[in-house]
Amino acid sequence: MLAEIITIGDEILIGQIVDTNSAWIARILNDNGVQIKQVTSVSDNKEHILEALEAASRRADLIIITGGLGPTKDDITKKTLAEYFGVGFRRDADALDNVKRIFAKSNRPLLAINEQQADVPENALVLQNQNGTAPGMWFNAGKQVYVSLPGVPFEMMYLIEEEVLPKVREHFELSAIVHHTILTAGLGESFLAEAIADIEDALPAHIHLAYLPKLGQVRLRLSAYGADKDALASEVQEHVLKIISRIPEYVIISEDIPLEVAALNLLQQKNLKLTVAESCSGGYLSHLFTQHSGASNVFLGGAVTYSNDLKQKVLNVQESTLMNHGAVSEETVIEMAAGANKNFGSDYAIAISGVAGPGGGTDEKPVGTVWVAVAGKKKTITHKYSFSGRRTQNIERSAINSIVLLLKLVREEHAYC
Amino acid sequence: MLAEIITIGDEILIGQIVDTNSAWIARILNDNGVQIKQVTSVSDNKEHILEALEAASRRADLIIITGGLGPTKDDITKKTLAEYFGVGFRRDADALDNVKRIFAKSNRPLLAINEQQADVPENALVLQNQNGTAPGMWFNAGKQVYVSLPGVPFEMMYLIEEEVLPKVREHFELSAIVHHTILTAGLGESFLAEAIADIEDALPAHIHLAYLPKLGQVRLRLSAYGADKDALASEVQEHVLKIISRIPEYVIISEDIPLEVAALNLLQQKNLKLTVAESCSGGYLSHLFTQHSGASNVFLGGAVTYSNDLKQKVLNVQESTLMNHGAVSEETVIEMAAGANKNFGSDYAIAISGVAGPGGGTDEKPVGTVWVAVAGKKKTITHKYSFSGRRTQNIERSAINSIVLLLKLVREEHAYC
Repeated sequence: MLAEIITIGDEILIGQIVDTNSAWIARILNDNGVQIKQVTSVSDNKEHILEALEAASRRADLIIITGGLGPTKDDITKKTLAEYFGVGFRRDADALDNVKRIFAKSNRPLLAINEQQADVPENALVLQNQNGTAPGMWFNAGKQVYVSLPGVPFEMMYLIEEEVLPKVREHFELSAIVHHTILTAGLGESFLAEAIADIEDALPAHIHLAYLPKLGQVRLRLSAYGADKDALASEVQEHVLKIISRIPEYVIISEDIPLEVAALNLLQQKNLKLTVAESCSGGYLSHLFTQHSGASNVFLGGAVTYSNDLKQKVLNVQESTLMNHGAVSEETVIEMAAGANKNFGSDYAIAISGVAGPGGGTDEKPVGTVWVAVAGKKKTITHKYSFSGRRTQNIERSAINSIVLLLKLVREEHAYC
Repeated sequence: MLAEIITIGDEILIGQIVDTNSAWIARILNDNGVQIKQVTSVSDNKEHILEALEAASRRADLIIITGGLGPTKDDITKKTLAEYFGVGFRRDADALDNVKRIFAKSNRPLLAINEQQADVPENALVLQNQNGTAPGMWFNAGKQVYVSLPGVPFEMMYLIEEEVLPKVREHFELSAIVHHTILTAGLGESFLAEAIADIEDALPAHIHLAYLPKLGQVRLRLSAYGADKDALASEVQEHVLKIISRIPEYVIISEDIPLEVAALNLLQQKNLKLTVAESCSGGYLSHLFTQHSGASNVFLGGAVTYSNDLKQKVLNVQESTLMNHGAVSEETVIEMAAGANKNFGSDYAIAISGVAGPGGGTDEKPVGTVWVAVAGKKKTITHKYSFSGRRTQNIERSAINSIVLLLKLVREEHAYC
């Protein structure tokens, strides 16, 4: 079963926002056995939306449209859908109640344009939106199903999970899709490919291997398509094991979870507490951990010591260390990590200090130079990275690589037993 | 002049990665007077890529393709482009030198599949990629120009800035586009629309107004299209002033810069230093500031005090305050902010404590309850938010709203003089 996603909004096409909706929708549909054929982003322009709908109908069974459902004049999705289906409008009583409920809750007066949020094309089945005034809409039209959803992420997410997915499962016969991802670090894409060439060549036609390089790591993703999910899963598992036993030293985790979640899980299993001392990564490492629910079981907190003064005050880095070796040095990150463990009462601490750029580089320590220390109870390991490129990448690479180091030390000190 | 972006890669269509490339490309092209007609994401499938290229050629003058240029078997963009243009391959000497240079630098052996990175369709003009082995390619084909770029963001960005944009400016006559964005907070989208309805109705046809709601704020974006950039800019400015003078109390900034940059700029002008004390926002607020180069002129650092213990140790929050009022309370955030200013030596401190969810909510303090305090030299202001929805949104909303509060207090204490 094939689906397409059409995201509508000029803000996407001028690059003012990144379209995160379609990745989220793609992932959840995929997990439910729906393959996404194409994602198309178009402007708030009637002819263009009509063209995109028509093109999608030639390729897909299910067409999910987000955006353009607001109350203001630039939002034309609803009108365009009515024209596409050749129908008029009706005011939906339940949708109107929902609009009134939301306005009553916040004590705001109800304007005519808010009431119009309850007007839907005559052939629409309304999907009630608990989180906003724009209803979702489901259209059975010939062989296709069209679903129109608001572009506001949490409204869209609620509607997909609570309304769209149950109806999709009811309406379509879904095929099974199994993905398995192996996260590797330390070997480039082409060397990985070389190392497992014979395994890849021997894959059956319904199992596909993809290489996804990102920030010094490569994810290997096996995707299998078929009828029986359990059979597919065990078939995929066989190939996963072959790959892992070929390159064991480069495998970080064999699960499609973020690296930081793998670290949190491992530390929680061992009942260990973590803190961080961040300079150039500036809070990003903390954020990586704390974006996940349950992080507080492991992550106590940390310091963002951007200034040298704070490195001394909060982490007890010696003034002489900063004077003699500089803030970006092995000596400094060792003291930062030790200070975090001591002052914050953790078992493991990660410290990061580097030149994120674009300014601040020197001949000796060019932009992209980053020192990381991970301190455990018995041992501290350090690593110097020489990244290049952009500030944001250097921040992300620093954080991600520091977690790889953390996993390494924790696994070493708490061997599988 | 119209452009389209085609991003190629199964990882986009299964939602494994968010396509951030196209927003970046759209923005930079737009700033250079190129309008983006459509963004299309397709799988690593020959027929589908061919179809997307053909469809784009009917709508756009410039077609930018990213992804699918890696050395491994799942990367088929180059082969597909050769088929699309009906040409064979040639090995490009400069591209081969570049591949050899990169492998020599890292002391890695050169494999046959790496050398093949230098093979390009016969009609391709090679755009040298300093940052990777896959060359960019420029194709003049009939009325259209096609540009193929690697999907790795920093390789793509380098090629767009250094190679593609100069050639685009040379090859096409570009029209002028002017955007101006007004960031507002405190008034819903439909009320804003009501408040400025007559101004919107009186806009000339070549100026378009869009409402972009996000995390409790609404961005109003005016976009003007025409021949003379300066004339457009002053015309837009007129309408901007009309809008601002209609709703002055809701305007946060009248510039298309992120909110946190507006705060950093204001503090830097006044020579004021900032620190933060984060609980539920978990480092995200620090990251918002530190992702921007030059943040260190204003931002000294801060603490992520996830545990109560760290709130006491690092920020001197009283145990009795935590006992009597809880970590999520006005009293606690006031002490956190005061502790940050005192211990970290700043002029202003932001403190955030809340229930990000999905767990941890109570009847009295449900998920989404967030207290923020901003402490200046003379005054501390606080605000309680009742967000709902998801963890990530609660984290983002907490951080963003805390910066709105910061701007308010700094402007109040350091009146424009």
